[in-house]
Amino acid sequence: MSVQFARRMCQMRPNTIREILKVTERPDVISFAGGLPAPELFPVAGILAATERVLRETGSQALQYSPTEGFSGLRESLAEEMRRRHVAAAPEDVLITTGSQQAIDLAGKVFLDAGDCVLTENPTYLAALHCFEAYEARVVAVPMDEHGLIPEALADCIAREKPKLLYTVANFQNPTGITLSAERRAAVYSLAVRHGLLVVEDDPYGELRYAGSAIPPIKSLDTEGAVIYLSTVSKTITPGLRVGWAVANREILRKLVIAKQAADLHSSSLDQRIVHRYLLDCDHEAHVKRIRLAYRERYSAMDRCLQEHMPAGFSWTHPEGGMFLWVSCPAGIDTNELMREAMQQKVLFVPGQDFFPDASGHRFMRLNFSNASPERIRQGVHRLAEVCRTALSVEVASANK
Amino acid sequence: MSVQFARRMCQMRPNTIREILKVTERPDVISFAGGLPAPELFPVAGILAATERVLRETGSQALQYSPTEGFSGLRESLAEEMRRRHVAAAPEDVLITTGSQQAIDLAGKVFLDAGDCVLTENPTYLAALHCFEAYEARVVAVPMDEHGLIPEALADCIAREKPKLLYTVANFQNPTGITLSAERRAAVYSLAVRHGLLVVEDDPYGELRYAGSAIPPIKSLDTEGAVIYLSTVSKTITPGLRVGWAVANREILRKLVIAKQAADLHSSSLDQRIVHRYLLDCDHEAHVKRIRLAYRERYSAMDRCLQEHMPAGFSWTHPEGGMFLWVSCPAGIDTNELMREAMQQKVLFVPGQDFFPDASGHRFMRLNFSNASPERIRQGVHRLAEVCRTALSVEVASANK
Repeated sequence: MSVQFARRMCQMRPNTIREILKVTERPDVISFAGGLPAPELFPVAGILAATERVLRETGSQALQYSPTEGFSGLRESLAEEMRRRHVAAAPEDVLITTGSQQAIDLAGKVFLDAGDCVLTENPTYLAALHCFEAYEARVVAVPMDEHGLIPEALADCIAREKPKLLYTVANFQNPTGITLSAERRAAVYSLAVRHGLLVVEDDPYGELRYAGSAIPPIKSLDTEGAVIYLSTVSKTITPGLRVGWAVANREILRKLVIAKQAADLHSSSLDQRIVHRYLLDCDHEAHVKRIRLAYRERYSAMDRCLQEHMPAGFSWTHPEGGMFLWVSCPAGIDTNELMREAMQQKVLFVPGQDFFPDASGHRFMRLNFSNASPERIRQGVHRLAEVCRTALSVEVASANK
Repeated sequence: MSVQFARRMCQMRPNTIREILKVTERPDVISFAGGLPAPELFPVAGILAATERVLRETGSQALQYSPTEGFSGLRESLAEEMRRRHVAAAPEDVLITTGSQQAIDLAGKVFLDAGDCVLTENPTYLAALHCFEAYEARVVAVPMDEHGLIPEALADCIAREKPKLLYTVANFQNPTGITLSAERRAAVYSLAVRHGLLVVEDDPYGELRYAGSAIPPIKSLDTEGAVIYLSTVSKTITPGLRVGWAVANREILRKLVIAKQAADLHSSSLDQRIVHRYLLDCDHEAHVKRIRLAYRERYSAMDRCLQEHMPAGFSWTHPEGGMFLWVSCPAGIDTNELMREAMQQKVLFVPGQDFFPDASGHRFMRLNFSNASPERIRQGVHRLAEVCRTALSVEVASANK
């Protein structure tokens, strides 16, 4: 039988990174491709203790259906966490989602009709693009520099495109590692309010700051209900539990809940209670500090090794946190081609192209530094630098012909 | 700031049942409203043992990101389970979803453009209607009788509506408890193939048969890739873990995976491994047998008590499994009004109306018998019968005026 798929399925591309990840579990391959946290830092003992307590003390509730909004205890913990992040939020302002990925999808579901315009950074998080494509939105990329979105460019885009929604990763952005400055956060917020633009502020990495000082989220400025703030425990506790959350005003939250009812009824009752218990019983702050230290060491190893070995003409960002570096290659290099050679040399990265809504950006590559040890990072950068050097000499040779 | 929601959000109603559930946790209220399994039958000890083993032996993997398709071990177990259900399936034919609710949503996402027609039973599962509404589909209800969907009526609907998809709960349907007969399964399948209609066969209750003998699913007939089969561990192990699955041909599964990547990346790694380990280490079959016995006892208690106490003119279905009875009230009774009185008397049910795509069916109510003990069931039916008797006498009095 021949089946006819929905129109959106012709637009939705498979997530290249997840495709790459599937084939890269060979131990001799050094991967900078994924966005995986370091598994050796997972608080397995703390999770185990939390789980045992949850199942022993509240087994039936932890395994039963639960409210779509989320487990009330966890909503309270996360409201408190939000206050630590300079956002005044009550438990009723928090919706628990199946990872923050689901929250992006729900925002799309709640706000986007086919043809609506969504603004994003250029480049932006790949799987957010997929969400917006699923609602047949028109994604328009706003230029950015080393301080993030450029407010003047944003103003132009708003005037020209009449967008419904702006999607931004303000801290240590995926893929570039760039952070939106405090001044620009204020500018973005005021533009949003002035033009009735809804901001989806996705903040998976904010807690992973290992240099500089924290900048309050755009949501902390939000007196008008213009910002939906998303976060997750994926990068600070573990991603396998799929616990993310959204903070929004009540009217919006209500619609997100209705959309979530249809999407999966509710997120895992057990996972929610494990995270809640873990936050109560374990020293989460000390744990996050350990992750920050480890990632800082990994970032430094990568940055230093790139400096020592990459040929001239390559440059990269210097993020103050998060999990990614963004490398810009000299003209003539196509990172899709480079990737093929890199795979031969057993080192992986993600070619930049997929992160650009317009599929430009073939001169860039994203490197993840959270998932490999400093030693493996040095080995991998050696291999990568060698691949780049070869590509460059081929390029120069062909240019000289 | 005033926000403008997507068109679909004007159509999507909140799930009434989940709304009712939120307010019914008072111990003096007897609820037949939810669709909750009996929590006292949850295999808490087995789940705890499985979890301990998973975290001790494979903690890092169980807490890391995992493939969208699902944990390979669980896909293998479920492929085996499918063979027990007379469906030849390889692990690669199985997609793990965040409850089977997500699988319904993904089917909508993959197949439905705005305006496309979906056929359902009349009445049907409420939250499936919500999924289809989210894709702005046009839902058309196919008449059914005590043997399920009527093939002649289905043929008429196909000819008239050119539907893309048929959604059916073939075993112990929600809300009616009715099972599609073997002959009709064959008829439905052959109509589907003949007309290029995709069948979404949702089977959450099939394992809960306490009388009669099992009928192989429509999927067991599927040589043409016309059927997407959905199931879940929610009713046989626990719903709080949110582990469901879809079985479909490779082309369709591939698209479901792409849609799921955008929806939540993957379902909880931990939950998947817990279910996998539980199925390996525990006597699942004996456990399901215990549930069947308990539910048979509860069904009998409800059926007998209804017979003894309901006034003349009320009738109900006699399902051979599942969790629901469907009560038909005499003309003049509106179960929405009845519900208000029942709430006063501290007994709850779900009024029929919401289960009908055309919001007809105000003469019906759905009663759940899995969640209360036989003793509580008898108490609740007493209260309900009293409410019905009063409503009936008011109705007769006003008709005599």
